[in-house]
Amino acid sequence: MASAGAAAPYYLPLGNEVELFLAAFSQRLPVLLKGPTGCGKTRFVEHMAWRIFNDEALVNAAVERPLTTISCHEDLTSTDLIGRYLFVNDSSDWIDGPLTSAVRHGGICYLDEIVEARKDTTVLIHSLTDHRRILPIDKLNQVLDAHPDFLLVISYNPGYQSILKDLKPSTRQRFMCLQFDYPSLEREAEIIRVESGIDPAQATTLAKVGLHIRNLREHGFEEGVSTRLLVYAGTLMREGVAPRQAADAALVHALSDDEEVQQAIADIVDVVWP
Amino acid sequence: MASAGAAAPYYLPLGNEVELFLAAFSQRLPVLLKGPTGCGKTRFVEHMAWRIFNDEALVNAAVERPLTTISCHEDLTSTDLIGRYLFVNDSSDWIDGPLTSAVRHGGICYLDEIVEARKDTTVLIHSLTDHRRILPIDKLNQVLDAHPDFLLVISYNPGYQSILKDLKPSTRQRFMCLQFDYPSLEREAEIIRVESGIDPAQATTLAKVGLHIRNLREHGFEEGVSTRLLVYAGTLMREGVAPRQAADAALVHALSDDEEVQQAIADIVDVVWP
Amino acid sequence: MASAGAAAPYYLPLGNEVELFLAAFSQRLPVLLKGPTGCGKTRFVEHMAWRIFNDEALVNAAVERPLTTISCHEDLTSTDLIGRYLFVNDSSDWIDGPLTSAVRHGGICYLDEIVEARKDTTVLIHSLTDHRRILPIDKLNQVLDAHPDFLLVISYNPGYQSILKDLKPSTRQRFMCLQFDYPSLEREAEIIRVESGIDPAQATTLAKVGLHIRNLREHGFEEGVSTRLLVYAGTLMREGVAPRQAADAALVHALSDDEEVQQAIADIVDVVWP
Amino acid sequence: MASAGAAAPYYLPLGNEVELFLAAFSQRLPVLLKGPTGCGKTRFVEHMAWRIFNDEALVNAAVERPLTTISCHEDLTSTDLIGRYLFVNDSSDWIDGPLTSAVRHGGICYLDEIVEARKDTTVLIHSLTDHRRILPIDKLNQVLDAHPDFLLVISYNPGYQSILKDLKPSTRQRFMCLQFDYPSLEREAEIIRVESGIDPAQATTLAKVGLHIRNLREHGFEEGVSTRLLVYAGTLMREGVAPRQAADAALVHALSDDEEVQQAIADIVDVVWP
Amino acid sequence: MASAGAAAPYYLPLGNEVELFLAAFSQRLPVLLKGPTGCGKTRFVEHMAWRIFNDEALVNAAVERPLTTISCHEDLTSTDLIGRYLFVNDSSDWIDGPLTSAVRHGGICYLDEIVEARKDTTVLIHSLTDHRRILPIDKLNQVLDAHPDFLLVISYNPGYQSILKDLKPSTRQRFMCLQFDYPSLEREAEIIRVESGIDPAQATTLAKVGLHIRNLREHGFEEGVSTRLLVYAGTLMREGVAPRQAADAALVHALSDDEEVQQAIADIVDVVWP
Amino acid sequence: MASAGAAAPYYLPLGNEVELFLAAFSQRLPVLLKGPTGCGKTRFVEHMAWRIFNDEALVNAAVERPLTTISCHEDLTSTDLIGRYLFVNDSSDWIDGPLTSAVRHGGICYLDEIVEARKDTTVLIHSLTDHRRILPIDKLNQVLDAHPDFLLVISYNPGYQSILKDLKPSTRQRFMCLQFDYPSLEREAEIIRVESGIDPAQATTLAKVGLHIRNLREHGFEEGVSTRLLVYAGTLMREGVAPRQAADAALVHALSDDEEVQQAIADIVDVVWP
Repeated sequence: MASAGAAAPYYLPLGNEVELFLAAFSQRLPVLLKGPTGCGKTRFVEHMAWRIFNDEALVNAAVERPLTTISCHEDLTSTDLIGRYLFVNDSSDWIDGPLTSAVRHGGICYLDEIVEARKDTTVLIHSLTDHRRILPIDKLNQVLDAHPDFLLVISYNPGYQSILKDLKPSTRQRFMCLQFDYPSLEREAEIIRVESGIDPAQATTLAKVGLHIRNLREHGFEEGVSTRLLVYAGTLMREGVAPRQAADAALVHALSDDEEVQQAIADIVDVVWP
Repeated sequence: MASAGAAAPYYLPLGNEVELFLAAFSQRLPVLLKGPTGCGKTRFVEHMAWRIFNDEALVNAAVERPLTTISCHEDLTSTDLIGRYLFVNDSSDWIDGPLTSAVRHGGICYLDEIVEARKDTTVLIHSLTDHRRILPIDKLNQVLDAHPDFLLVISYNPGYQSILKDLKPSTRQRFMCLQFDYPSLEREAEIIRVESGIDPAQATTLAKVGLHIRNLREHGFEEGVSTRLLVYAGTLMREGVAPRQAADAALVHALSDDEEVQQAIADIVDVVWP
Repeated sequence: MASAGAAAPYYLPLGNEVELFLAAFSQRLPVLLKGPTGCGKTRFVEHMAWRIFNDEALVNAAVERPLTTISCHEDLTSTDLIGRYLFVNDSSDWIDGPLTSAVRHGGICYLDEIVEARKDTTVLIHSLTDHRRILPIDKLNQVLDAHPDFLLVISYNPGYQSILKDLKPSTRQRFMCLQFDYPSLEREAEIIRVESGIDPAQATTLAKVGLHIRNLREHGFEEGVSTRLLVYAGTLMREGVAPRQAADAALVHALSDDEEVQQAIADIVDVVWP
Repeated sequence: MASAGAAAPYYLPLGNEVELFLAAFSQRLPVLLKGPTGCGKTRFVEHMAWRIFNDEALVNAAVERPLTTISCHEDLTSTDLIGRYLFVNDSSDWIDGPLTSAVRHGGICYLDEIVEARKDTTVLIHSLTDHRRILPIDKLNQVLDAHPDFLLVISYNPGYQSILKDLKPSTRQRFMCLQFDYPSLEREAEIIRVESGIDPAQATTLAKVGLHIRNLREHGFEEGVSTRLLVYAGTLMREGVAPRQAADAALVHALSDDEEVQQAIADIVDVVWP
Repeated sequence: MASAGAAAPYYLPLGNEVELFLAAFSQRLPVLLKGPTGCGKTRFVEHMAWRIFNDEALVNAAVERPLTTISCHEDLTSTDLIGRYLFVNDSSDWIDGPLTSAVRHGGICYLDEIVEARKDTTVLIHSLTDHRRILPIDKLNQVLDAHPDFLLVISYNPGYQSILKDLKPSTRQRFMCLQFDYPSLEREAEIIRVESGIDPAQATTLAKVGLHIRNLREHGFEEGVSTRLLVYAGTLMREGVAPRQAADAALVHALSDDEEVQQAIADIVDVVWP
Repeated sequence: MASAGAAAPYYLPLGNEVELFLAAFSQRLPVLLKGPTGCGKTRFVEHMAWRIFNDEALVNAAVERPLTTISCHEDLTSTDLIGRYLFVNDSSDWIDGPLTSAVRHGGICYLDEIVEARKDTTVLIHSLTDHRRILPIDKLNQVLDAHPDFLLVISYNPGYQSILKDLKPSTRQRFMCLQFDYPSLEREAEIIRVESGIDPAQATTLAKVGLHIRNLREHGFEEGVSTRLLVYAGTLMREGVAPRQAADAALVHALSDDEEVQQAIADIVDVVWP
């Protein structure tokens, strides 16, 4: 997690997303990040948290934890987010949940893959995302006013959004939206090079493989490939694994169990490393 | 939340809803607010709570909390509403839930999106919404008579009311109903101008965009656009974001994941900011 | 709730239901009340509780609480009805649930909308509704004999009784049954007049509107309109709201979200208040 | 519940069920009672418990509670049957559940409508119904040998036994079976006379009505009518209610919500009380 | 339960199952017993536990409890099997569950009808059934090595194994398998004679009836009849019940609710006891 | 479980999986093992844990527990993995769950059959499998940085991966993948010989039987046979059981309940041991 003194997490902007996020933060507009898996949404929000909370002009004061990330899932309860009493050694103490902590002390609270959360969680954030900016905590019989430097950010991947797991319009229409996609060939090659440590030519080859795999979407392979797996392939290569074997482990077998899809990916790899 | 001494929350009436609400409050008739997302139901009830509890002629006495808002969801239990014993440092105290608190001390209790609540919650309010005006609290073995200035208000959006999430007639026929819709073009432009701070011409342009987006309903985009998102677009523009980019973030991408719907919205935007 | 010393709750009999209830109480036969929503079942049982427990000839002694009403729902557990241990300040006390309290101290226990209850609740009442008249309380390891003046009354609305929510014959065949319907035109006008305070002519007009709305049943509007909503319309009129607007709020919009049904109801209203 | 000193509960045998039950008890064979609702299974087991535990030749010693009846339902847990620790005033005591209590102290344990119980309950009784006659109590880390005078009896109504709620053969084939049906006309008239107090002619008329209602089974009314409801009709008549009105309350309306079925029952009643 | 000093539980071998079980125990191979209900699987494992733990050559030392039987069902949790902390009188003690107890102290742990268990239970036994022979106990933060004389045995009836309740191959392929069927005519007659006390001719007649009932399988009666029910019929006969009546109670009515199946069984009985 | 001082668990490599795993560990890339049941995935990870944590060049320091294996199932909660407070004798202590323990102290944490786990478990590992390498522990209000020698390994069997139990791409694309299959004939014969103790000829015969059984896949028997069951058959043979009977117990009956499949397997066995 970005701590105020550390170097900014590496992030290569794709468009005007940095400027839009700064404008949103300036007015404390809640932000929704949309895009495919592994395209850099988590990195982006880490980068922005670092930038904003290291810039005295943007915030009231530095906060202890500029970013709190919560991976949502169907068993996440409102208690998990808000807090609970814990009974330790004959005394009971209230422990703020991660959302309450961010609301109270400021910083960005990032709910990753919000559509996976239970409905009580999504409803919980309503009062934080309109003019009220409050969080009711029933168990403390309190209504908490949000810290002036609190901002709520959520994300999801429209690629697997099913009918059953959709944001209700009454939730959705509380957020401005930044839409992400995979980086361009050049940018992705650069990311692979920096993160895996291989040379630029190999990095570009891997980025091209990634591009071709994503084009399989038209042939029924919807998921695409994340930049992360391309970095894994590069990492194995730098560790001395033969490129074809690295690609098998990090791409062909990692991406699918379906033999036809595996063959299609292998065909792409065979072109560059026969 | 409206506190008795603050200024009245901004609300621009659409019709006779203020007069009807006052008549309902006068006779303590429970009220149902129906209408699409983001059309101003929450604002309206905040406004009315402020007006009523700041007018000595309407109530018996000022109350500490004129309005308690509860966003309903499918995991909201009757215990959440009524209260529970909490064990803190070897002593156990009863903590009133938000509904009990309003019933005991007076004020409006507003159950937002009631159809999302579990059945035990909707049944709970039956005895508060007929001539009995009582709330049984089994865990205290008490029957609480409602404060003379208590009023129950509920809301829902008939647009997403499914067969499974419908108010039973035995619940529904306990409320008089105020039916809301989006504000007129002029009123909405005025709201956008006041809340985002942009100039009247830009506000009117955004209101017109909103009108056109709502007309997409005939083309399969049911949700419409809330006034809130139009205000967000205005806010980004006032922050210096180019209108077309502000519209992309606050409208085109925020409203839908469907490429065709996004294109249809973008087409509307292109007309005014090509 | 009727307390022994207060005036009898207002109730206008529809047929021989008062006499049949008295005969049932005399022999402590459990009673089932069937009928549509808002036709007066709750009022009737309040009225009978008042009459019976204010007449020394009918009961052994006055009881503290002549009537206990429990609105059933799918999360009502047997623990809710029977009671639980509560831990308060290092001591634990048994708290009778509302059913146990009535079984122990006498009075009518009224389970409203019994078909909404969970199966453990409906099975629970078996031993109270045959010759045994006992309530086993496992957590106290006790079997409680019912107070001689205890009577169990249940109700449901056959109109929404689904296959899934049906009384099992082994439960159902433990009750004699009083079948209710809406009051006649004259009776309903009288009720509207008394409860809303408007003049007899207006009350009769509202009762006629109710009759016509109920006839819509043949056109697919099954629920009818409760007397309560007609009283609400009258109440708004007495508060000075124009009749057409009162009817919109209390009838047209309150009864349905379906535009066609709303139009059909509006057409009925237009005839009397064009 | 039958206590050893009281008079035997009234029961009129239908066939050889008394002798078979005595033979089963003599060898401690578990017994299954099958038959329609309200045909007298509960009475029979109360009667047999009284007879057996009042006859020194049949048991080792009188027991405190000759019969423990448990109405099964889908929320009955094994904990409910076996027992639990209860924490009362800083001390915790083990409380035997009703099944454990009968296993420990002797007597008949009667699980009514066993097919409604959860699977953990039906599995629980396996070790009590073969040569082992033991009840493992995990929370006490004990295996309890059954009292020599313990017997397990279960019942169900094959009429509503669905595919989902069927006894597994591995459970079922642990019980000998007594199959019940409604009593003959003469026997039922006698039962109605004794229990309601009306004269023999009226009782016979009611028994005939019952016979005709049960014949409606061929016309789609599967449930038949219990002897209990016929007794209710007789009871209301003895209280002075006109026979036709008594039949409406105790039979026509009590048996069905379906207008056609109600009419068919009313037609039967009209023949005898036009 | 077999205790080391008692006589061996009666068991008549059907084939080489005793030798195979001894070979399996010798190498501590986990064993699966498959076969229809009531064919003697439980008896067999009791018999083998007695034999093995009374033979000093086969085990390291006698154990306190040679056999622990657990009837599986869908609510059996891993906590039930492994153990829990219990709070008794201000002190909390860890109580081994029955599986942990067997793993710790040695002996056979027999999970009857394993396919009824929840998935967490079946997964739990994985580490006990391969070369690891360990049981992780998370709540104690321990990994328990199995006692050298611990063996896991499971059973199920392939007759009702549904798609939903099937052992996963990853569980199944951890056990060698002994497949059981009903005993031969001669063997079953001998079992009936010994257990019910009737004479050999009657016992043979009952065994023949059993054989014919099992042949009904081809006519849609899948369950067959357990040896246990045939013993029940013999027991009733020895108590003086007429054979035809004993067969009705223990076979015809006990085996099925279906009138056609009951008639088919009655036809078989009529041949021998007309 | 491999302890640092013991001999390396027996494992015969099938290809380059050892080298790839070492490369992955070197860069701490999370690893997914895919393959059919009983093909040696668990052995492989035990072997690798032993090798890595016994080689000072590969790790920072020896760890107490080089490998923690967790069999996933649908009731495994995040609490089970992360830890809980336990109340023992009036004091409450935090007990690390097995995942937290590995994250804190180093070593490989192996989540076997990850697709069986609940969603909250799979989401839990996200922050451990990207550049963050952190584990948030809400109940301690801590974020735990992973030990430098911590590595996460998961496995599943694509053979039974259903639509409902699939890894989401956002989880899946966090792991490089090693794809396993059954060993070759020669290798499997060698494994059977070493583990069961039979002679090489018999071991080869059993390996051939295994190969033929796996070829039945084309005839609808999907599961194949694990090496483990072939070892069981060898073990029984070494215990003196006749080969044909050993094959019945360890293969024919153990692999399937379907008579046709059993016959097909028996046919294969008959060829070698007629």
